[in-house]
Amino acid sequence: MNAIETLVGEFGRLPGIGRKTAQRLTYYLLKASSDDTRRLARALDRVAAEVKVCAACGNLTDVDPCEYCGDPRRDRRQLCVVEEASDIPAIEKSGNYGGLYHVLGGRLSPLDGVGPDDLNLHGLLGRIAEGVDEVIIATNPSVEGEATATYLHRLLGSSSDVTITRLARGLPVGGDLEYADGVTIAQAFSGRREM
Amino acid sequence: MNAIETLVGEFGRLPGIGRKTAQRLTYYLLKASSDDTRRLARALDRVAAEVKVCAACGNLTDVDPCEYCGDPRRDRRQLCVVEEASDIPAIEKSGNYGGLYHVLGGRLSPLDGVGPDDLNLHGLLGRIAEGVDEVIIATNPSVEGEATATYLHRLLGSSSDVTITRLARGLPVGGDLEYADGVTIAQAFSGRREM
Repeated sequence: MNAIETLVGEFGRLPGIGRKTAQRLTYYLLKASSDDTRRLARALDRVAAEVKVCAACGNLTDVDPCEYCGDPRRDRRQLCVVEEASDIPAIEKSGNYGGLYHVLGGRLSPLDGVGPDDLNLHGLLGRIAEGVDEVIIATNPSVEGEATATYLHRLLGSSSDVTITRLARGLPVGGDLEYADGVTIAQAFSGRREM
Repeated sequence: MNAIETLVGEFGRLPGIGRKTAQRLTYYLLKASSDDTRRLARALDRVAAEVKVCAACGNLTDVDPCEYCGDPRRDRRQLCVVEEASDIPAIEKSGNYGGLYHVLGGRLSPLDGVGPDDLNLHGLLGRIAEGVDEVIIATNPSVEGEATATYLHRLLGSSSDVTITRLARGLPVGGDLEYADGVTIAQAFSGRREM
């Protein structure tokens, strides 16, 4: 297979990138300077070579412990439990969480064959046993994420006196009541707060 | 900048890939095996190292002359003029053209500062002078593509006795008359053929 076809094929293996997009990206790089193409190749090589899983929290990182676990300014008495390492940048960007993270590496999904043994729960229980004040469950607001949150609540609630919280459900800021789905509005009602 | 951020940045430089998509692609590769990531890096390196412009037709290729110009079975008396090398695979896939190609490397677009001198017209005139029966103008059905086709028609029509044709305009197969735009329908009418 020639070089162009090979690159189209490799781009096409990425999620959400169909054959047409793969061709478009390939021809874009062919028209760009070969330095641009090589810089992307080097960035990929670096990720393949340097990125590993943080032994403490399960975050993807190029230093172990990761930048959060290794930061002495962060509050070690708070653990925010997320499904994936990719959820962490979104929380960090929100800018008002200063504790540590714990990455489950997925969510309970019986249909996909993902059970509790597939999640990084052993590590979570170990970290809680070392002394944590609050576990903030930040799984996704999806059916599987909710099921995972419920499972975690039962698992942790029985074994320790740690405070377990979860992120509020409600109307997204900048959203439009008119277009919000019924479940979100119902949760916004049941979670309403006195002003 | 760490390896993950670097890769997100590099993906984000590609056209049509915003920051969110760049993150999604990066985290997909982080969860995939590092072999997958390295394979994409190798495909990029190959393209950067091997792909060059065919001296005869302007196609992007890893062999010079390119696979079309170098194929003795193709009809050397037909030239299909396209804007970009990326147009060629689409025509090849249609499966009923057996001549050679000529890549202009763009289209006339005064607003973007692209004039006749920026297109590979010198090469086209040289090839026609060597003896060609038909030049098929296959520029895009856009305003700039039409302007380029008209310019080519004038340029070639005056200087030689070659037949100049262009691809038919009309309703796309599988399309829906109801949703076709007015210009397309008008062209389908004016180009109607006896059954």
